[in-house]
Amino acid sequence: MAAAPVWSADPRTGKRREQVAVEATAAAVDAAVRAAHDARPALADRGARAALLRRAADLLDGAGERIVEAADAETALGPGRLTGELGRTTYQLRAFADVVEEGAFLDVLIDHADPTLTPPRPDLRRYKIPLGVVAVYAAGNFPLAFSVPGGDTASALAAGCPVVVKAHPGHPATSELCAALLRRAALEVGLPAGVAGLVHGFDAGVELVRHPLVAAAGFTGSVRGGRALYDAAAARPHPIPFHGELGSLNPVVVTEAAAAERAERIGTGLAGSMTLGTGQFCVKPGLVLAPYGPAGDRLERSLAEAVGATGAGVLLQDRMRDAFLDGVRERAALPDVQAPVTPGAGGEHTVSAGFFTVPAARLADDGGTHDLLLEECFGPVTVLARYTDDAEIGAVLARLPGNLTATLQLGVAECAGEDGPPAGGGDGTARGAAGGEDGTRPDAAGRTGPEAAGGGAGRGTGRGARLLAALTPLAGRVLVNGWPTGVAVAPAQHHGGPYPATTSTATSVGGTAIERWLRPVAYQDTPPALLPPELREDNPLKLPRRIDGRPER
Amino acid sequence: MAAAPVWSADPRTGKRREQVAVEATAAAVDAAVRAAHDARPALADRGARAALLRRAADLLDGAGERIVEAADAETALGPGRLTGELGRTTYQLRAFADVVEEGAFLDVLIDHADPTLTPPRPDLRRYKIPLGVVAVYAAGNFPLAFSVPGGDTASALAAGCPVVVKAHPGHPATSELCAALLRRAALEVGLPAGVAGLVHGFDAGVELVRHPLVAAAGFTGSVRGGRALYDAAAARPHPIPFHGELGSLNPVVVTEAAAAERAERIGTGLAGSMTLGTGQFCVKPGLVLAPYGPAGDRLERSLAEAVGATGAGVLLQDRMRDAFLDGVRERAALPDVQAPVTPGAGGEHTVSAGFFTVPAARLADDGGTHDLLLEECFGPVTVLARYTDDAEIGAVLARLPGNLTATLQLGVAECAGEDGPPAGGGDGTARGAAGGEDGTRPDAAGRTGPEAAGGGAGRGTGRGARLLAALTPLAGRVLVNGWPTGVAVAPAQHHGGPYPATTSTATSVGGTAIERWLRPVAYQDTPPALLPPELREDNPLKLPRRIDGRPER
Repeated sequence: MAAAPVWSADPRTGKRREQVAVEATAAAVDAAVRAAHDARPALADRGARAALLRRAADLLDGAGERIVEAADAETALGPGRLTGELGRTTYQLRAFADVVEEGAFLDVLIDHADPTLTPPRPDLRRYKIPLGVVAVYAAGNFPLAFSVPGGDTASALAAGCPVVVKAHPGHPATSELCAALLRRAALEVGLPAGVAGLVHGFDAGVELVRHPLVAAAGFTGSVRGGRALYDAAAARPHPIPFHGELGSLNPVVVTEAAAAERAERIGTGLAGSMTLGTGQFCVKPGLVLAPYGPAGDRLERSLAEAVGATGAGVLLQDRMRDAFLDGVRERAALPDVQAPVTPGAGGEHTVSAGFFTVPAARLADDGGTHDLLLEECFGPVTVLARYTDDAEIGAVLARLPGNLTATLQLGVAECAGEDGPPAGGGDGTARGAAGGEDGTRPDAAGRTGPEAAGGGAGRGTGRGARLLAALTPLAGRVLVNGWPTGVAVAPAQHHGGPYPATTSTATSVGGTAIERWLRPVAYQDTPPALLPPELREDNPLKLPRRIDGRPER
Repeated sequence: MAAAPVWSADPRTGKRREQVAVEATAAAVDAAVRAAHDARPALADRGARAALLRRAADLLDGAGERIVEAADAETALGPGRLTGELGRTTYQLRAFADVVEEGAFLDVLIDHADPTLTPPRPDLRRYKIPLGVVAVYAAGNFPLAFSVPGGDTASALAAGCPVVVKAHPGHPATSELCAALLRRAALEVGLPAGVAGLVHGFDAGVELVRHPLVAAAGFTGSVRGGRALYDAAAARPHPIPFHGELGSLNPVVVTEAAAAERAERIGTGLAGSMTLGTGQFCVKPGLVLAPYGPAGDRLERSLAEAVGATGAGVLLQDRMRDAFLDGVRERAALPDVQAPVTPGAGGEHTVSAGFFTVPAARLADDGGTHDLLLEECFGPVTVLARYTDDAEIGAVLARLPGNLTATLQLGVAECAGEDGPPAGGGDGTARGAAGGEDGTRPDAAGRTGPEAAGGGAGRGTGRGARLLAALTPLAGRVLVNGWPTGVAVAPAQHHGGPYPATTSTATSVGGTAIERWLRPVAYQDTPPALLPPELREDNPLKLPRRIDGRPER
């Protein structure tokens, strides 16, 4: 039986462009995993890893025009956005090269023997070693930064783990091009090409997560697909860590003061954020709580103007367009839901942006009639929920699932902590808005004060601080007076959050993303001559360490 | 329907002593979880947490005699061992108080805004916050150190997470006593008693891991029970982290040189380690590879003498005695298996220690006829596998599941890295012995050089270094010339390992055990007045931090 062909298609026309590969059979998946597994010894060298990451960045930059052209032809994301995304991707590869060289990620801990303790303490030296082959499931909406040469690949290679990437079906040609460059970079720095494998096909993805030599997985995509793979990873005879980023609503709370001070700026900013990349960002603000009253009305009007002026856009794939049209149709049919700008079909292959309004009280309704509005809808649409008082904000927040981000739009006095107690709703926000943490989202009962969430003894006591504490349990990143789209690649970044935002407590962006692919090992009373150099007393590699429980100075 | 009674029983007689509690109904589990959930705000204060841990340690020490008496009556572990275990338990509580106060576990990362970057970088400030209520599943073999006041409880409370402990049925009275002291400590330092709940009963344990307000779980016990709970945690609508320590064989490799130099000391040391606590330690050495020939014979003889001289012991519960007797009977019936000292029944309620011998070649046999010898057998028994050459060592190691520990017994020259290339078997150890990492254990094919495992470019090249690299993929702690029993409570300790040793890459002993109960959150462009004090620029809490990717000096 011939292997199924993999086609590259043009979302602007819905037409196939060319066959770029075939779907991987079980044997082909096995071969890719074994090649990756065989590449582990070579990748154990940190210097080689840093060189690989830098060389890959150089080759990707060098082929920039070709990559952007290929990606645009398959995704319709546009050369501007894709050029920026490529820059972000190569910046990320180089940032991980720096992380590898600094070595703090090895988390070296040394405890000297202490015979005076009862029982006597042996000499213990701990650091982190690579887990093994990592399966990477590429996303469709970032054909570079969350795909073949993206954050999962970069952080896994940095950790010393070879990868086998399951290509996203939306951009197979771009995937092949980038994988070829990664493999060329490997060969150029003296590493085997097997450090970065690539497979196509749905069945291949399932084979991959079940393969006994795959030691961990990274995923960016839908709740449905991610959960199925998570379940497969957990059901293995030997379960493996599955770091999946599945879905996020990214709530925004606009206070009365913020709306009064800058309704138009908020409306325009929101329109820009929710339509960016035709609304196909995982951090798109999908639910916005804004006050009733004149300030909120101004916000709604400026949002309507800006969204209405946004041109039609092309979604990544026809099936996403179908899902978007179904999603907005279902939402529009709910009682008390209005569409000041109706989202829907543009041309034959495009969609037009829009937004819905709904009384916030309907979202807090325990009947669950409007729960669909609390689910992510991929594409250029958001929901503006109008609230009466702080208690309503709290009641809605208490019903939200986990998120990658949560955003506050505050007034000047609220930012300074100089606002008095809330005018309406009394202590409502603090009471109702603070939720549980990971895994406690579905059941809203029994929730208590916000200080539990942010760990925040010593925070301010104004409304700004209270709302910040109330949003903290909901998300992995909390923003004030900004917009969640745009995820900076930075050491302190956290791109993750309570389920279903992510399936683990880890991040997929930023320096600490490397932690996902490592495990600690401790050596006890091991003769100096046998220790790896990372753990030698004289610290030949000049690594940051903690000695006997304290940072070494 | 009346709730089922919970009895305390005496393993020395098999008789019930007294009813100490009732099994928790679903409503009782719910009440305990809600009380714990409600205690989160109070526990958010780090000072209160440190005070709680120290006060609990003081109260436990103060009630030491009563606790040891209660625990001995239920477990027959003996006052000496239990007094030591109590000391270890209170040391651990105080060590976590130090960890809380130092604050490095908060992992504070601050990146200042950088408008010169493309795209501009916002101000990002990340630290870690508590996950929420932690379910703790107590172990039977450590009624204190891995039970109600043990490492999971101590690390969870240190992280700011209230706990609900599912008591082990083997020591319910001890559990009640310790839980009462924990709750008293909480009240004395001004915290609600709900920070430490206790429930009894198998069904209660299942309810607990499924409770929507439970955010994470820690478990120490059997592969069967742990896997069932792991599966339940993964199958939740919102999956939660499940940190389980399930089972471990703890292999030991004795080189020809080590046996030649000190056969008797190794035999006696092994006997002591495998019979310690009547063989009921999770780090009991369960498989020992020793050479054929005169030195190995000396080792076997001294092991036989020392084990034969060990008195009969009482196992924790009658059902464990039954499982032990079944286990040794099945193993004894395998072809080519001898029992120089036959393990088995002692008196009516005791067991006697023993060990089996087998040619190592039978364990490497792909037919799997002797795979039972590669499974943990709880109780005072071990397997001495005699090998011909290094290739046989490698072939056996390649078939092992994941372990908490792996131990090398080396000769003096091997420790110094001064030994030449191996005399027999050529490169066999290096080739055959290096395995994959987590999750790659079941499939031995495709394995390559040992340097992949230890990350060890720059290690020595003698047999000692090669064997150390070969053992590293097998375990979370690797020892040289020691015995694995005795798990030091220390910052650099790692008590965990590839599945089934643990279900995650985390440790349940040592300072980093706190990491299991936290998740990061990043604040973006948040006004200084609203930041939690942990993230303020002026660092009022004097926390260790990394600023713009570098440790702050």
